[in-house]
Amino acid sequence: MSADLIEPVTDDRPPLEQDPVFALHRGGKLETRSSVPVRDKDDLSLAYTPGVARVCSAIAERPELVHDYTWVSNVVAVITDGTAVLGLGDIGPHAAMPVMEGKSLLFKEFGGVNSVPICLACTDTDELVETIVRLAPSFGGINLEDISAPRCFELESRLRQALDIPVFHDDQHGTAIVVLAALRNAARLTGRSLPDLRVVVAGAGASGIAVTRMLLNAGAGDIAVSDSKGVIHPGREGLNPYKAALALETNRAGHTGSTEQALAGADVFVGLSGATVGEEAVASMAADSIVFALSNPRPEIHPEVARRYARVVATGRSDFPNQINNVLAFPGVFRGALDVRASAITENMKVAAAGALAGVVRGELSEDYVIPSPFDPRVTSAVVTAVAAQARLDGVARL
Amino acid sequence: MSADLIEPVTDDRPPLEQDPVFALHRGGKLETRSSVPVRDKDDLSLAYTPGVARVCSAIAERPELVHDYTWVSNVVAVITDGTAVLGLGDIGPHAAMPVMEGKSLLFKEFGGVNSVPICLACTDTDELVETIVRLAPSFGGINLEDISAPRCFELESRLRQALDIPVFHDDQHGTAIVVLAALRNAARLTGRSLPDLRVVVAGAGASGIAVTRMLLNAGAGDIAVSDSKGVIHPGREGLNPYKAALALETNRAGHTGSTEQALAGADVFVGLSGATVGEEAVASMAADSIVFALSNPRPEIHPEVARRYARVVATGRSDFPNQINNVLAFPGVFRGALDVRASAITENMKVAAAGALAGVVRGELSEDYVIPSPFDPRVTSAVVTAVAAQARLDGVARL
Repeated sequence: MSADLIEPVTDDRPPLEQDPVFALHRGGKLETRSSVPVRDKDDLSLAYTPGVARVCSAIAERPELVHDYTWVSNVVAVITDGTAVLGLGDIGPHAAMPVMEGKSLLFKEFGGVNSVPICLACTDTDELVETIVRLAPSFGGINLEDISAPRCFELESRLRQALDIPVFHDDQHGTAIVVLAALRNAARLTGRSLPDLRVVVAGAGASGIAVTRMLLNAGAGDIAVSDSKGVIHPGREGLNPYKAALALETNRAGHTGSTEQALAGADVFVGLSGATVGEEAVASMAADSIVFALSNPRPEIHPEVARRYARVVATGRSDFPNQINNVLAFPGVFRGALDVRASAITENMKVAAAGALAGVVRGELSEDYVIPSPFDPRVTSAVVTAVAAQARLDGVARL
Repeated sequence: MSADLIEPVTDDRPPLEQDPVFALHRGGKLETRSSVPVRDKDDLSLAYTPGVARVCSAIAERPELVHDYTWVSNVVAVITDGTAVLGLGDIGPHAAMPVMEGKSLLFKEFGGVNSVPICLACTDTDELVETIVRLAPSFGGINLEDISAPRCFELESRLRQALDIPVFHDDQHGTAIVVLAALRNAARLTGRSLPDLRVVVAGAGASGIAVTRMLLNAGAGDIAVSDSKGVIHPGREGLNPYKAALALETNRAGHTGSTEQALAGADVFVGLSGATVGEEAVASMAADSIVFALSNPRPEIHPEVARRYARVVATGRSDFPNQINNVLAFPGVFRGALDVRASAITENMKVAAAGALAGVVRGELSEDYVIPSPFDPRVTSAVVTAVAAQARLDGVARL
């Protein structure tokens, strides 16, 4: 059995009209609805003119009332420029819409958060910042999505400074929260804690860098990060500023070779690269190794192959055990942040979300169950509670 | 009885928590929902990863498929900068949200059109154009709302040139469509046609100018337009370019005085100014006069006072007969345009909408019934059919 046995999803596809995915997508997946009655002219006079003028006047006098009397405090924009969509790359704003629309419906279904997909026809960072700042009065939070690295780092940072509502780049932080939760549980299962682990992260894009930073914050000390040119180290030339900073904070062992070389004797592999990793490299890892082959739809190594050597294997796919799925995090993170009208999502709030998510598994922990299912009803409530409580502790809650 | 008997809506209001308008507005009036099932991981794999990647790839290859397989072709952005909200003026983007949210729910309830309220934190015309152009891939149409004149004219014109989706400034064209429909029926009731009528339009902002242009296009020949300084004529100094153009095309009788002076002997008064008009001026109009006192919430003259002299009286209010309400037009106009994937909303399509709207009344025509109720189920279907058919005739339909 090899990675080739995972059927490619884009080949040999049937004509669109026979494909159940296209049948489901016809006409889109999202709708808006009135949440108040509009049955007669009396209803209209409350929800629209003349009544609505009183609400506008009240907000003009006391701007904070916008949160009480409009949907703003319960609607998140899912914003992309279409430059790094799933595994497909820079396919532009129109082709990105099915993913953003899907994300918006997940916000509602899993977090009760209204959400609007916004695909922007600009990719310059200055233009993205100014556009999103202009849009911001319409939303209670901004979820950035599928924006290519390294622009996504500067974009998120500038938006966090400019806005007093939560800004969250899910490809970075959503992934990092779920990876940290699963890794905590996998370490617990094997009787270790984060500082004990030698970790290799393959991929130094948005998710690779965010996962590395979150693991460092959570206490992991020995992490090697690799990109397509091998392990990142201070001697490498041409590193972008984000990779150069990582080079100074990671790679305690001084690796200078390939991802596969770094895996020899390692405890944990986190694949976020889209590249493949050979069976021999996984076989060379330490006992009780942990393999998170998270590239989607094709994991870095077939999970059944990895499982011959590793104690715990996770992927990004729903058809294998231990799915590392961002939907475990972002709906609850935003729900919790909006519930307390948080002005930002802090690092502590993300760590709290990961802890809550790991905690859902508790006594049921096993090799094939280090992370709960998105359909486990305990997930969102656990994340919401932890995030809201941490927002209060961090002083960013306004309710 | 005088105009003072219409109770002001902003005075003597009860505390917010006791006001049914605020009770209704708590938490907002709009929500987003999934229109596809998300019950289990199989549903997720169709609506989201891995299935969604196939839809993205197909759109990347054939961009026109975005209309078939996303919600884009059935969602309209309601966009404002908060500079001319109802009768309240420049109250900013946050305080404008209750109106935009209300408009969005009307789009859905009356036209089956999904709609997202967008309140922008910029007012410069260049910035508004560039922002809306960047947002445009996310929407099937743009409804501009409550943007102050004269900026709204340039903004709409530039957006129409830049975009290949319908752009419609409802304060201009929605109002103009419904006024034209009601005036056609009022003229029919009194045995006249548009070219027979001497018309005075009070107000030279967005709606006043658009109504005047539409009446001119529809054959009305004798229109005097006034603003706060009196009737617009070529000899007046300091006219903005839009008023200067109107001065050359209107005021056949050469009025140079006040609105009230121009009303002596006139057949039709269309009030879109917010200013009051005295009882004597209405009394001085011709026999079988037609008074549309459309300022909201306070008509230019109390409709019961006007009715002593005029044969037909209309207002913008739901609590008097003949409500000139934009909701009679915009949901059906966009529904019709989206149904045929129109690249624009042409002047002919607006005239066709007015004709269809007037036609709904037919045999039931009377002094107190020159325009149908928004809750008349025939309204939207009549407008949709007329607009879609005219789009095909005008060559802007793409379906």
